[in-house]
Amino acid sequence: MEKKIIIDCDPGHDDAMAIILAASGVSHLQIEAITTVAGNVGVEKNTRNALKICDLVGLRDVPVAMGADRPLIREPLEAAHVHGKSGLDGTGLPEKPVKRTVDTHAVDILIDKLMASDGDITLVPIGPLTNIAMAIRKEPLIVSKINEITLMGGGTYGNRTSVAEFNIYADAEAARIVFESGAPITIFGLDVTHQALASSDKLEELTVIDNLAATTVADMITFYSNAYKGNFAGAALHDPCPIAYLIDPSIFELRQVRADIETKGEFTYGMTVVDFKGATGKTLNARFATWLDQDRFWQLFLDALRSY
Amino acid sequence: MEKKIIIDCDPGHDDAMAIILAASGVSHLQIEAITTVAGNVGVEKNTRNALKICDLVGLRDVPVAMGADRPLIREPLEAAHVHGKSGLDGTGLPEKPVKRTVDTHAVDILIDKLMASDGDITLVPIGPLTNIAMAIRKEPLIVSKINEITLMGGGTYGNRTSVAEFNIYADAEAARIVFESGAPITIFGLDVTHQALASSDKLEELTVIDNLAATTVADMITFYSNAYKGNFAGAALHDPCPIAYLIDPSIFELRQVRADIETKGEFTYGMTVVDFKGATGKTLNARFATWLDQDRFWQLFLDALRSY
Amino acid sequence: MEKKIIIDCDPGHDDAMAIILAASGVSHLQIEAITTVAGNVGVEKNTRNALKICDLVGLRDVPVAMGADRPLIREPLEAAHVHGKSGLDGTGLPEKPVKRTVDTHAVDILIDKLMASDGDITLVPIGPLTNIAMAIRKEPLIVSKINEITLMGGGTYGNRTSVAEFNIYADAEAARIVFESGAPITIFGLDVTHQALASSDKLEELTVIDNLAATTVADMITFYSNAYKGNFAGAALHDPCPIAYLIDPSIFELRQVRADIETKGEFTYGMTVVDFKGATGKTLNARFATWLDQDRFWQLFLDALRSY
Amino acid sequence: MEKKIIIDCDPGHDDAMAIILAASGVSHLQIEAITTVAGNVGVEKNTRNALKICDLVGLRDVPVAMGADRPLIREPLEAAHVHGKSGLDGTGLPEKPVKRTVDTHAVDILIDKLMASDGDITLVPIGPLTNIAMAIRKEPLIVSKINEITLMGGGTYGNRTSVAEFNIYADAEAARIVFESGAPITIFGLDVTHQALASSDKLEELTVIDNLAATTVADMITFYSNAYKGNFAGAALHDPCPIAYLIDPSIFELRQVRADIETKGEFTYGMTVVDFKGATGKTLNARFATWLDQDRFWQLFLDALRSY
Repeated sequence: MEKKIIIDCDPGHDDAMAIILAASGVSHLQIEAITTVAGNVGVEKNTRNALKICDLVGLRDVPVAMGADRPLIREPLEAAHVHGKSGLDGTGLPEKPVKRTVDTHAVDILIDKLMASDGDITLVPIGPLTNIAMAIRKEPLIVSKINEITLMGGGTYGNRTSVAEFNIYADAEAARIVFESGAPITIFGLDVTHQALASSDKLEELTVIDNLAATTVADMITFYSNAYKGNFAGAALHDPCPIAYLIDPSIFELRQVRADIETKGEFTYGMTVVDFKGATGKTLNARFATWLDQDRFWQLFLDALRSY
Repeated sequence: MEKKIIIDCDPGHDDAMAIILAASGVSHLQIEAITTVAGNVGVEKNTRNALKICDLVGLRDVPVAMGADRPLIREPLEAAHVHGKSGLDGTGLPEKPVKRTVDTHAVDILIDKLMASDGDITLVPIGPLTNIAMAIRKEPLIVSKINEITLMGGGTYGNRTSVAEFNIYADAEAARIVFESGAPITIFGLDVTHQALASSDKLEELTVIDNLAATTVADMITFYSNAYKGNFAGAALHDPCPIAYLIDPSIFELRQVRADIETKGEFTYGMTVVDFKGATGKTLNARFATWLDQDRFWQLFLDALRSY
Repeated sequence: MEKKIIIDCDPGHDDAMAIILAASGVSHLQIEAITTVAGNVGVEKNTRNALKICDLVGLRDVPVAMGADRPLIREPLEAAHVHGKSGLDGTGLPEKPVKRTVDTHAVDILIDKLMASDGDITLVPIGPLTNIAMAIRKEPLIVSKINEITLMGGGTYGNRTSVAEFNIYADAEAARIVFESGAPITIFGLDVTHQALASSDKLEELTVIDNLAATTVADMITFYSNAYKGNFAGAALHDPCPIAYLIDPSIFELRQVRADIETKGEFTYGMTVVDFKGATGKTLNARFATWLDQDRFWQLFLDALRSY
Repeated sequence: MEKKIIIDCDPGHDDAMAIILAASGVSHLQIEAITTVAGNVGVEKNTRNALKICDLVGLRDVPVAMGADRPLIREPLEAAHVHGKSGLDGTGLPEKPVKRTVDTHAVDILIDKLMASDGDITLVPIGPLTNIAMAIRKEPLIVSKINEITLMGGGTYGNRTSVAEFNIYADAEAARIVFESGAPITIFGLDVTHQALASSDKLEELTVIDNLAATTVADMITFYSNAYKGNFAGAALHDPCPIAYLIDPSIFELRQVRADIETKGEFTYGMTVVDFKGATGKTLNARFATWLDQDRFWQLFLDALRSY
């Protein structure tokens, strides 16, 4: 049976790979919409990148809707240039996408799709949570319509500060709204996404696949690896993780946790405070991915690319 | 020449009086829309009250759009019951309004009206600033389209805490977004609205006016006065102040100030920090009403009621 | 009967005048000790200034003890130069004081004097509250030994920021410790000290008094007035106010209040949040001076100077 | 050559073991003083416990000075009863110690010893950092006299909350003062102290040692283990770690880090934010113990007990 998803993203190389995975032949996911949000680069660039990827993988009928261009409360982050100036440097994709966005705002397409659904749509936010938070505040009734929020973000340590991960840090107030909304959440944070490392042997397997999707992904991983060079974690495929989970949950191990987003800290703003042991005594509000089967993850990813 | 306004409100007795004043014969204001927001009572009750007042004063063609039912970030306040259970107790208005809301969300009608305008619409928020903040975040381009934000809120002292006024306190994060947006702001805070006191001699003049609008207002002031009984300030007509200003600016004295909204304080959350002397060195971002001519204010208000 | 006091100060022109008033012939106050603290200038300069004033007024036997050179938690303020480079510019006092400090630290002399007392010592802090807070934390038993803390600081508006007064702002965490200690507090804040204005006619009366104390005070007020020139409030004799009160309480009007010190605010750090109406529902912890009889205040001050 | 130390503690079973280790025959540490501070129980109980341990191990000439009975700013924690009602339950030590405290306050003995030294005294705080912070604020000159602060506290995860360790959490503002003081700091946090686990096989080796110190330690570990029963980490010998390090640094691995103490966070108050990678760009201010050689640690500890 098909699983309906909406991908809320800020492409970004690993966002692009997440879309490619979701749209591939190994996926039974039905992409209801792609919504975009400001992240490492502004929302206009991110939207153009999303459209390019749709062109690449043939997502002709999936609506792409542009969303928030800045965080809810905090000042926008200065760009970190991990993904280059365009947000998606290093690929041979055409400069101008053929596909166009719909006129509807991301927040409204989220609300409309969810309200019209039978509660069977899973949200897959792989950028800052601004759009999701705004949708929850504009139409609180969507919360009970969300099947699950399967997100890339957070972790027990950080990549933007020592303790805060980029997606959460970039709009911690929005993240807090989402985490306290009551919607079921599954967190794919750095603890697990750093296990999805694109090491050089994996890249070799990938480069023998001869189609445009695969060579684009190879280009992206190469670019991305160079950007991270010298950094502790290598090129991690962060954003494909929640998609991989939705395709095959058995690849991952999860734990029930309480997760709170710090918005007041001087040194800890944007931290995802994960309580594994019930120390807070608060309602458990999320599942937290702790482990992935690296071989099976890569097998799935390579099969996905071979399917193009 | 007519001045276009959108009233964003949470009626509320003094909100109702603001609408009655704006719709009266002494007003050259063209009400483009009335939008509602949660305040002392929830947004559904506030919306019903807004519709009742439209019925009363014959605002048949003005769209009424329901907005946010809770603040952006902070927890909703527990109701203070100043305005009774319905939010508008003590009047003889029919329980069920004839008029209906439009389907559009308050945030979208704000955006649509502003984006379609020539920059000649003044926003008149007389409740918490949630809708205005959400509109600014959803469509940042509206900021340059706003002629002015003429709001009731804030002051150099408080009525909800010793230092925070209700409308700002009820959604301080939203207020902060608005005050830092760059839109021109005129503040009618407690310093000036407490000068618009409905004392008993004024009530006498009012009760001789023989029409439904006037008797409804008299009922409201009576109810309202009882609610405040024993309190320091008497029944102040807070929300009519910005409307009166738009009808006749010469009634008021204003000063250029820097106004910041405190969202982090332990004892000062929701305070409007007004810098009259440029101590902060920051760009002046608001005009602050310090004085009103009581006689002329009341004359205007009575003339408005007589016009029905 | 004599009233025992310890003056905790950061002289400073008005601190100097407070000591001169306390040591004068119109005063029945017995100065048990003078302790010093960093304020507008560092504690070493403040201590030298305190010694100079003791030399001037003949306080040979009163121990002067140096105290904290920086605030408890917050970073030290950059000097504002209201009092000039020495902290006491513009007087003809000898550069080097004859009197010496005792070896004991201000915190310890506060503790020792209070613990040895019958609970009859009044503390008169007229600088930042660092020493008092440290003494309370080092020996909590002193709280029940303090007759009263009669301090200059705070107000319903500010002089360092729009809402924060210098003495409180300079060490708000220390102030908070003191205000929450349970010791009885009387606040002489800007609301009342700005009524103790040295206008030019007052200066004339003063300059005809022919003794060194009086001419020094005249010099100080002149210097001080120039420093404030163009400022709204003129040269206010802030620090003599609590001393004047202890000499003649009938000059002042006080109200019972709840006063809390804001230490978390973004725009309100160091604010003294005064609740006159019991809005907080918390225990009243202070008396707040709202008014002084200007004529009688000046009469007292002039008589004090004539007594030298 | 002897190494001079001052142990600042809140005994506590593992504090007691730290003193026993420091006073043993394998130690070349010269204990200049033992100072006490409020922790899990009040400072009076902690002081009595410190005196009892001194009686046990024959520390007749080492001055024991009582210190702060509550944290600097935050409210005192409610006791967690890990160490029982007395703070040192489960031992057969006499109820009343023979040894007496000196009259001097802990803060003053710290200052006096350091100021009289040649800069060769190492502080070993194994409780909340209140005394050390107060000493630094009372006499800032001690900072340059401190050889090193070798402390038990902090870690990359918590035991009081998910992210905060008890000693830091119990007085985070004091910890912040110490960490920002400029004194050289070595942190023995939970990451390393949880490697000093008293497992049952270790307990067996210990129980064959036949002297009062050893049997008391055995009793303490048994009591302590029961208190932690069911908890993830077992009975860790937290406080002996910095002492073991001073006796034999080669047992430990350390990394240079930036460590900041969070005092503003809503979910992260008291967290030790450790930056291993220079992400903050701030001066490295601490060494952080990451690993200990378990066999050698236990060998040292057992040798120490055998030496009695």
